[in-house]
Amino acid sequence: MVIVMKPDATEEQVRQIEALLKKLGLGVHISVGTERTIIGVIGDKRVLADTPLELMPGVDRLVPIVESFKLAGKTFKPEPTVIRIKDVAIGDKKIVIMAGPCAVENYDQIMQTAKFLKSRGVQFLRGGAYKPRTSPYSFQGLEEEGYRLLAEAARETGLLVVSEVISLASLEQAVKYVDVVQIGARNMQNFQLLREVGRMKIPVVLKRGLASTIEEWLNAAEYIMNEGNYNIILCERGIRTFETYTRNTLDLSAVPVIKDISHLPIIVDPSHGTGKWKLVTPMSRAAIAAGADGLMIEVHPEPKCALSDGPQSLNLETFEALVQEVAKIASAVGREW
Amino acid sequence: MVIVMKPDATEEQVRQIEALLKKLGLGVHISVGTERTIIGVIGDKRVLADTPLELMPGVDRLVPIVESFKLAGKTFKPEPTVIRIKDVAIGDKKIVIMAGPCAVENYDQIMQTAKFLKSRGVQFLRGGAYKPRTSPYSFQGLEEEGYRLLAEAARETGLLVVSEVISLASLEQAVKYVDVVQIGARNMQNFQLLREVGRMKIPVVLKRGLASTIEEWLNAAEYIMNEGNYNIILCERGIRTFETYTRNTLDLSAVPVIKDISHLPIIVDPSHGTGKWKLVTPMSRAAIAAGADGLMIEVHPEPKCALSDGPQSLNLETFEALVQEVAKIASAVGREW
Amino acid sequence: MVIVMKPDATEEQVRQIEALLKKLGLGVHISVGTERTIIGVIGDKRVLADTPLELMPGVDRLVPIVESFKLAGKTFKPEPTVIRIKDVAIGDKKIVIMAGPCAVENYDQIMQTAKFLKSRGVQFLRGGAYKPRTSPYSFQGLEEEGYRLLAEAARETGLLVVSEVISLASLEQAVKYVDVVQIGARNMQNFQLLREVGRMKIPVVLKRGLASTIEEWLNAAEYIMNEGNYNIILCERGIRTFETYTRNTLDLSAVPVIKDISHLPIIVDPSHGTGKWKLVTPMSRAAIAAGADGLMIEVHPEPKCALSDGPQSLNLETFEALVQEVAKIASAVGREW
Amino acid sequence: MVIVMKPDATEEQVRQIEALLKKLGLGVHISVGTERTIIGVIGDKRVLADTPLELMPGVDRLVPIVESFKLAGKTFKPEPTVIRIKDVAIGDKKIVIMAGPCAVENYDQIMQTAKFLKSRGVQFLRGGAYKPRTSPYSFQGLEEEGYRLLAEAARETGLLVVSEVISLASLEQAVKYVDVVQIGARNMQNFQLLREVGRMKIPVVLKRGLASTIEEWLNAAEYIMNEGNYNIILCERGIRTFETYTRNTLDLSAVPVIKDISHLPIIVDPSHGTGKWKLVTPMSRAAIAAGADGLMIEVHPEPKCALSDGPQSLNLETFEALVQEVAKIASAVGREW
Repeated sequence: MVIVMKPDATEEQVRQIEALLKKLGLGVHISVGTERTIIGVIGDKRVLADTPLELMPGVDRLVPIVESFKLAGKTFKPEPTVIRIKDVAIGDKKIVIMAGPCAVENYDQIMQTAKFLKSRGVQFLRGGAYKPRTSPYSFQGLEEEGYRLLAEAARETGLLVVSEVISLASLEQAVKYVDVVQIGARNMQNFQLLREVGRMKIPVVLKRGLASTIEEWLNAAEYIMNEGNYNIILCERGIRTFETYTRNTLDLSAVPVIKDISHLPIIVDPSHGTGKWKLVTPMSRAAIAAGADGLMIEVHPEPKCALSDGPQSLNLETFEALVQEVAKIASAVGREW
Repeated sequence: MVIVMKPDATEEQVRQIEALLKKLGLGVHISVGTERTIIGVIGDKRVLADTPLELMPGVDRLVPIVESFKLAGKTFKPEPTVIRIKDVAIGDKKIVIMAGPCAVENYDQIMQTAKFLKSRGVQFLRGGAYKPRTSPYSFQGLEEEGYRLLAEAARETGLLVVSEVISLASLEQAVKYVDVVQIGARNMQNFQLLREVGRMKIPVVLKRGLASTIEEWLNAAEYIMNEGNYNIILCERGIRTFETYTRNTLDLSAVPVIKDISHLPIIVDPSHGTGKWKLVTPMSRAAIAAGADGLMIEVHPEPKCALSDGPQSLNLETFEALVQEVAKIASAVGREW
Repeated sequence: MVIVMKPDATEEQVRQIEALLKKLGLGVHISVGTERTIIGVIGDKRVLADTPLELMPGVDRLVPIVESFKLAGKTFKPEPTVIRIKDVAIGDKKIVIMAGPCAVENYDQIMQTAKFLKSRGVQFLRGGAYKPRTSPYSFQGLEEEGYRLLAEAARETGLLVVSEVISLASLEQAVKYVDVVQIGARNMQNFQLLREVGRMKIPVVLKRGLASTIEEWLNAAEYIMNEGNYNIILCERGIRTFETYTRNTLDLSAVPVIKDISHLPIIVDPSHGTGKWKLVTPMSRAAIAAGADGLMIEVHPEPKCALSDGPQSLNLETFEALVQEVAKIASAVGREW
Repeated sequence: MVIVMKPDATEEQVRQIEALLKKLGLGVHISVGTERTIIGVIGDKRVLADTPLELMPGVDRLVPIVESFKLAGKTFKPEPTVIRIKDVAIGDKKIVIMAGPCAVENYDQIMQTAKFLKSRGVQFLRGGAYKPRTSPYSFQGLEEEGYRLLAEAARETGLLVVSEVISLASLEQAVKYVDVVQIGARNMQNFQLLREVGRMKIPVVLKRGLASTIEEWLNAAEYIMNEGNYNIILCERGIRTFETYTRNTLDLSAVPVIKDISHLPIIVDPSHGTGKWKLVTPMSRAAIAAGADGLMIEVHPEPKCALSDGPQSLNLETFEALVQEVAKIASAVGREW
């Protein structure tokens, strides 16, 4: 960290800060510039986490030099993390697809979808049992029954299952039924939930928050990893911007950025990222071309009857075409499908 | 709601939609334009909440006409809501101030602060027992002991207490100690927590989410009201934008907007809204001038020792000056302090 | 357009608006809902462009139904526009690449770059003669001499040339030397410049503004087309968001959106879109995968000596690798390179 | 400036950078941390403006320590700038109001408005002669005739005149008629226009760009000041965010920020900042309470006939009430009206 002093800071003030830092066991490096003095701080800055140095007399501001996350970063672990669940690997050469309806509605819907997906080589069945909805008057999900139906479909088809948890109670239910839990965008900074998922050691898809920077996202992963759970799959799903034509702005640059600074695998959800089914296939191609390890796609046998997010769901035919197009891109970037 | 058909929609497609709407008990009004046909839908659109009309053949998009919230809106209740807790009224002529440290640290800190605040006429003591922090390596709060210390300070001084809840477990604890619970920006769409606060009927400060529109904010209030709890105090605390000089961008326009479309009282938190103590006093004056019913301010007897958010905390002297300045603005806009 | 009346609007107020609209030659369709009355307006709404109907008594707000642009839209021209300049076609099956240094610096730099690009099959040489720079203390470009050097390099290599214009004066110079002028993000709403480029009929790359919606972008194109110049190549180059890790957020979803609602060709500039050379290749692959018709890339023989934007420039070796990777993606999506 | 080296940077790489900096006449301060080495650079960094140090081997990134603007900053000139035009001072104790219609339409409209404003103590008449409009089909202004009508109204009433310039040609016209030129949000980074306004030494209202940070705004001022024109009045007019209820998000925090880091006066335009006339009065009160030196307000004798921006214009009665409310706030913050 670098402490930038005010233009009119006194030598005495610089010395006070030096003394404080040394008392905390940190190294100090003072550099007197033409306009300002700056102080380099050397050592483990975690001892400063709760000391507001900004408020020491003469201090103008602090400039972080080292990233705030550790375990999620490449400095900690340079080689990519591959997560293995049964016979599926995420973050390896083969692309992974997680697909299914936004919300689990009933046995027929989920079985029909699951069988179709399995026949097309998809690895994961996704489906919501608890649905966070903007309005209290919208369908909120089948809750535990939803998880149960997913597990049943998984058992009959051999698919793996991923489903969202929105609270400690839903997490406790979910772990009985699913292979991977998902923490949605709205809960990316539900720190209690992050910690509990960390303790449970269950693989987790961690979606990026609507208004979260990449650094905050990796700090959310850090909460989980700090409890000993390293099985984290990051999922870019769009951020909120001024553009209203799309539901969110899918930030595909996050894919190569994550590959550059973190060892965790990353997938992309173009269904939520765009909010329009017509954009899902081109943005799926783009995601794989950008280097993503997989996709999460909303598929519904009859989108126009879907109880949630119908407008962004593909039907079975358009999904099948998507898989074929994505396969070609995977091959063009040296991946497999 | 208005359904906008595609330029090339057929008459048959229009008739299909008409039939569907009528079957659902809705009125239909068809208007054939030069470029497109539009269909006006009359009646309670909640029956359509989970029918993705966008996917019907020939439909281009839906345009909502009536706002998505009901109970929080002025159409439902035109006169302003005044919330009364013991002898304090929020939303009435007198301005309300909620002040205290970001985090409760120990008995001395909270008692010294409470006595000072009481002597300056402040109505509410605030302080965090559970702190949502971006990094897992930062101080996370005293948890239940924090609530207990707040309650003790309240008992000794006669102040009311407001403190944040971050989960069902913390809510169950909090209601034993505090007068008002706070739902923070990160939990504004933690719908389970909203519903439970709704059932408990305890007064609640509902902060606006970092990336939430005013409409989504009122929908979050709707979740609480839908369970029968109407004691909601909205709190504007800044939204996330591209500007990095301030921690967030305090959206003071939200104050007159809320006054125009909702009956709920609204306060402003310029401490989180700006992230810099130097900006807190001018933005407090501005908030009251814009029509806010009160303020939430971070005050710490020694900001430079604060375990959380020191850089945005006022010390006792600067807070005292703030109160005097705010009092003048209150009087200039026909309010009282 | 739909006029939404206030809940308490009177019948008299509805009739006043009806009368006004009819006087202007527009058709009127009134629909009385359970909460509000809405008025559908039929005919060419351009007669209303400067009549603030929002202020008529009883009106709550206006909802546009038809997009605000005409000539740039697919309703006006359903088939894609292909722009032909000498033997190069933009918007056709073959991908187009425009490459070169951010700023033209001297003869050697631009000739070395041009020869290399030509040998790799690139169609367009780009280079800035006038550089809009945030700080007045940064290099501002060689001005007319820059255009001259580009033209010389074009003549010797057979490349086409594209270069930015920032004012009427620079436009007058540019047309003497270049094949395509570029309107940069900061000038996307410099309406006088748009009109003049429209009158000159010279092909133009129109970059999206930093804070411009897709609709505003197409309206900027409309200014040019309204003067009779249809040779417009749209260029997505990133929008401003809260994320600071990348210089801008490259909005690749804009590519399939433009393909869906406009007939104009679209290219992508991942150099400005990300601001980091390491991200340029993956985002180039993604752009072509998303359906872009081409790329605009910053290449410099020695990026670390570049007078402008060095950190986002590729050197000749990395650019060569980019072209090979992009070629594979082009083929995977049925395009050619 | 601080140069942050990569974790794996070699000593040799550090020495190369040191050598380069010393050759350029800069001082160097090397600090070897536990994870990384950082290099403090001492001296006038303008010699580095076009050297992309980021690309030197071993460099991770650059961290600016001193702000990028000089002349606009408080370090350069600590005391506030007061701009005097005839008998009016901007930035002094007395609040300044600039008011008038969005667009000048005809003699009667502008004279009626001017006389009314003069009788209410307003100092400046504003009105647009050139109107930048999103759509080419909207009214674009009376051009030179607009300036002439403003000058005529000024002569008859004794008001000062401010009007927007959008190009060099309009600037040349404007200086013959107006006291203050305005550079609008869309032209905040039209650097050629900034420079020419700088050379002309005419007082200028510099509006903040829609997507401009405070630092970029002050750099735009720097362009003008660098040519010798110090008569700059900054004007906050709202930034673009995800919130759509208001036309823009008025960033009032910018007022105390500017007061903290710059010596230039700042006014606020709540008409464009909110886009809704109902919000103009509360946000005007808030602006003055936040410390603004004045206001720019759209007033039209008959907003519902306005050819531009009617929905955000006040009529004469509501404007008169605004002035009275603002006067009370001015007095509450120790200013005068």
